[in-house]
Amino acid sequence: MKVTVLRLGHRHERDKRLTSHVALTARALGADEIVISGEYDLGILTSIKDVAKRWGGSFKVSYNASWKSMVKKFMAKKAQIIHLTMYGLPYQTKLDALKKSKKDKLIIVGSEKVPSEIYDIADFNLGVTSQPHSEAAALAVFLHDLFGGRELKKQFRNAELKIIPQKKGKKVVRK
Amino acid sequence: MKVTVLRLGHRHERDKRLTSHVALTARALGADEIVISGEYDLGILTSIKDVAKRWGGSFKVSYNASWKSMVKKFMAKKAQIIHLTMYGLPYQTKLDALKKSKKDKLIIVGSEKVPSEIYDIADFNLGVTSQPHSEAAALAVFLHDLFGGRELKKQFRNAELKIIPQKKGKKVVRK
Repeated sequence: MKVTVLRLGHRHERDKRLTSHVALTARALGADEIVISGEYDLGILTSIKDVAKRWGGSFKVSYNASWKSMVKKFMAKKAQIIHLTMYGLPYQTKLDALKKSKKDKLIIVGSEKVPSEIYDIADFNLGVTSQPHSEAAALAVFLHDLFGGRELKKQFRNAELKIIPQKKGKKVVRK
Repeated sequence: MKVTVLRLGHRHERDKRLTSHVALTARALGADEIVISGEYDLGILTSIKDVAKRWGGSFKVSYNASWKSMVKKFMAKKAQIIHLTMYGLPYQTKLDALKKSKKDKLIIVGSEKVPSEIYDIADFNLGVTSQPHSEAAALAVFLHDLFGGRELKKQFRNAELKIIPQKKGKKVVRK
């Protein structure tokens, strides 16, 4: 099961840090890839790729101007299209079905304005609570439960930097 | 068990949206309160309070210029001081002990620079993975597992706005 995250409607200045948080959350919590849509932003692509390279693993980062063509490509490949939205059904009610299916997943997380077509095109519109909070937080909880905690043990190969967990203080080893 | 989140080192312009995401994540995922430290930012306090009021519940929002005096107050009350940091021990290894204890919790989430004293003062320095990602995401996963999913069913009383979860589209009722 391959998991791709689509970050919708990125805006250069306003979303810089949040898109970065969404991408790094996707990577840290086990997704294989992020595709950023919205405004083209070389700076953010470069900085996420840089983190992914230094911290290891095979996380992919790319830009696609047309979310529509991308979603259609995933639909053609029979991937499950999951849109995380506070307006959707409680994600926990669909979790068993999603976990059982071996189909690839495309997880869509929006920015401020999500086109209404997304709600129609998605196989699942799912909310991590029906309260306003954060797309990074929603994505994190969703991935964590989708992978059932296995993602916490993921090894990131060929890392230049690696943290050795400490009770106090910081320990980072460099290769 | 009362759960308070301390957002450390807020910076006016740079952290505006992230501090807001951290606060709303704390609220949506079952924490009782957030205290923001760092630069005083009336705009963000007002906007989080406004969301909390409109969407209901009893989430508290405040500012404290001195994180030190605040942490000491919590220590005096025998609360558990938990610092979420990628450098810490895997949170899942301490989860059972934290869940069993009925003590109040103070969960500290930093911004870019965390004073080294925090690592010493904390009873637990815990990482949600040892990878760089997002304080909003880390807080979300931690709270979700601390509350064992019960937080997903939390009712927010006296809400002006309430979402009725939908398979497609949006439905919000106003009181």
